[in-house]
Amino acid sequence: MAKNIVEPRTLPGFMELLPEDQIEFDRIKNIIEETYKRFGFLPIDTPIIEDSNVLLAKAGGETEKQIYRFNKGDNDLSLRFDLTVPLAKYVAKNQGVLSFPFRRYHIGKVYRAERPQRGRYREFYQCDIDVIGDGELSISNDAEMPSIIYNIFKQLDFGKFKIKINNRKLLGGFFDNLGLQDKITDILRIVDKIDKIGQDNVKDMLKDLGVDDGKINSIIEFVGTKENVIPYLDSLNIENELFKTGLEEIKLVSKYMISFGIPEDYFMIDLSIARGLDYYTGTVYETILVDYPELGSVCSGGRYDNLAEYYTNKTLPGVGISIGLTRLFYVLNEYKLLKENKQKSISKVIVLPMIEDLTYPIKVATMLREKGINTEIFLEEKAFKKKLNYANKQNIPHVIIVGEDEVSQNKVTLKDMTSGEQKTISIEELISELN
Amino acid sequence: MAKNIVEPRTLPGFMELLPEDQIEFDRIKNIIEETYKRFGFLPIDTPIIEDSNVLLAKAGGETEKQIYRFNKGDNDLSLRFDLTVPLAKYVAKNQGVLSFPFRRYHIGKVYRAERPQRGRYREFYQCDIDVIGDGELSISNDAEMPSIIYNIFKQLDFGKFKIKINNRKLLGGFFDNLGLQDKITDILRIVDKIDKIGQDNVKDMLKDLGVDDGKINSIIEFVGTKENVIPYLDSLNIENELFKTGLEEIKLVSKYMISFGIPEDYFMIDLSIARGLDYYTGTVYETILVDYPELGSVCSGGRYDNLAEYYTNKTLPGVGISIGLTRLFYVLNEYKLLKENKQKSISKVIVLPMIEDLTYPIKVATMLREKGINTEIFLEEKAFKKKLNYANKQNIPHVIIVGEDEVSQNKVTLKDMTSGEQKTISIEELISELN
Repeated sequence: MAKNIVEPRTLPGFMELLPEDQIEFDRIKNIIEETYKRFGFLPIDTPIIEDSNVLLAKAGGETEKQIYRFNKGDNDLSLRFDLTVPLAKYVAKNQGVLSFPFRRYHIGKVYRAERPQRGRYREFYQCDIDVIGDGELSISNDAEMPSIIYNIFKQLDFGKFKIKINNRKLLGGFFDNLGLQDKITDILRIVDKIDKIGQDNVKDMLKDLGVDDGKINSIIEFVGTKENVIPYLDSLNIENELFKTGLEEIKLVSKYMISFGIPEDYFMIDLSIARGLDYYTGTVYETILVDYPELGSVCSGGRYDNLAEYYTNKTLPGVGISIGLTRLFYVLNEYKLLKENKQKSISKVIVLPMIEDLTYPIKVATMLREKGINTEIFLEEKAFKKKLNYANKQNIPHVIIVGEDEVSQNKVTLKDMTSGEQKTISIEELISELN
Repeated sequence: MAKNIVEPRTLPGFMELLPEDQIEFDRIKNIIEETYKRFGFLPIDTPIIEDSNVLLAKAGGETEKQIYRFNKGDNDLSLRFDLTVPLAKYVAKNQGVLSFPFRRYHIGKVYRAERPQRGRYREFYQCDIDVIGDGELSISNDAEMPSIIYNIFKQLDFGKFKIKINNRKLLGGFFDNLGLQDKITDILRIVDKIDKIGQDNVKDMLKDLGVDDGKINSIIEFVGTKENVIPYLDSLNIENELFKTGLEEIKLVSKYMISFGIPEDYFMIDLSIARGLDYYTGTVYETILVDYPELGSVCSGGRYDNLAEYYTNKTLPGVGISIGLTRLFYVLNEYKLLKENKQKSISKVIVLPMIEDLTYPIKVATMLREKGINTEIFLEEKAFKKKLNYANKQNIPHVIIVGEDEVSQNKVTLKDMTSGEQKTISIEELISELN
């Protein structure tokens, strides 16, 4: 009976890696997760499918169009599009039993039906941490977040990076002080684009908004790059309460960031950063790779006043950061920044039996595994050259050859695949050699 | 402006754990993953959403009804319902670049819209490994699989377990030899239920199928529990080729299972095990917890002739096992088998500052983190008692108290939360104490 062969394709916009790349992807994911745990964050795992009424309580506009939403039976279901809404649901639902501040990390896939294009994925991993307070949350938490970013990107070792921080209260207070309180949202949106569209376009857009030239110049000067931001901010002597709170906050955050171990040349205050429009209310973060600023921010986040207002009347302020791992992996790969970091293989060693009875080679593999050494055994009947090719293609650094001689001597032959050297040794010597 | 509060609920049939349980869930998942790597399996990660035409190339019947299938734009999409079909797609798609035998592990969520009931989930984790051969695959691989099961459940330490193996060629050959070749599929289906429905019901069903009493007794005797299965099988002197192949295979598998380090009292041949109906063709496995046989098999699998016949003309035989982690976690929890195993917390230590300036306590936390110790710092302004309550509720084993005295002496006070003992020591002493 002839079968129809269906082409085994993967949908566009969905990342599916070969094992070699998957190993590297998992290595990065693991560094992120271990660092989140090092800082004492607790794991949560929420469903990918949620009730649409729950998931979309807040959503609207562009995001809603991108949601995978469908019916199954009587249920109106949606796939989560970020990890923040599920966190809000989780905290609101479990508020009676969680300890606050609630520190959680969450690494998982989220879904957005974006128009597929290079580096845009419809399924992608987010790696989030947030600290949620019950009613209030100390500003010192805002200094801990960048120290987690620092630790992760230091370990990932993709070159020099810089964490940029700002505080939206400074921006809001400054615009308020200029008498532009009714235009703050629009000004923030425009100023946030300065890196992308340039100063002149920003000026034009502010003019179109009805801001006069003097104020435009003040804004441009304010958000421009400067060496010593805090003395500059002090020198402005602005008597606006929001501004003064923002200034106090950023001073404390900067001070404690040093205590949290971030070297001064790994962070800067950048007054042009605003991040989104209505969610963040205080400290905001972006992270750029210094040699590749065109990649945009590789880790962002900020402070918000109320996580779960759609699910509870309790006020839940928080601060968090997020790494878009799938896109990060894509761009690092595009820029050839992964190659040198690549781990060679899962297995440290592979046993190649040269004899028909596999009892002895299997015992060798079993002993190595019992010692915690990742070990493969090649069980197929193939020519020696093919077995060696397999080991080579898998980048396994050590090969153990077991033939008649080795069995009779109760030894093995260990071949170093990098140097090509080989020697016949006892199992005990083998274990100490591999450890 | 009053807001509508949406009840923050999670859909029935979806597991969402509190952090304490999530830590334990992740601990189990991590043991499974690390063991898969220890045996040299490579990671893959495939999309949860696939093109329905690709995913459902083979599916039919009960499974198809349970699939989450929907349209988005012009696309007919489905959520994966197992990890085997995605593996088939992956191997067929990448056959030109993969090394064979291809050994992969895959841990991920799958979706089935089953009727929700206790212990049945609509979203659940599967933890799969398979070895796929290119055209052929040595029978010795069938002996390695149970050794992976043994290693995992030994580490999980949920009490005594037993790996049951069988070979469908033995069953098929035996029925064939009885002249029942046209009824093999039906007999397998009936015999597979013997543990659930009992011997008498099996007899009745075989009778209804038109099998005569003599043959029914032969079948019942054949699949019954016995001490020395291989001598029994030898003693039957059955001259059926399929049976003889099955016998050779199970002899070799049993022999190598010992070499792979499985103690003899951890496995047995059980001739009543058939596993499903049309997929497996040789060795089959089930694993039961000896003191809780009612839980059913906690890890199953087997050998199949052709993984991806719907996607490629290449013959891809394989052998694999799967752990249904979400259901396993549910039943272990129901039977109170998790409690004693529970890891206490993510953090090994928490710093509780007793002073306003957090510089010194933050530095202490940072030093511990730099030494690889999972460390939390309590940054909120609360009464000491509340801080201690927080540490206690989180089950963090060590608390570091930093007040004025500690700062002036450049020391810390370390409190053991189990014994209640506390002592004031230097940072160096602290680090060596915690390591």
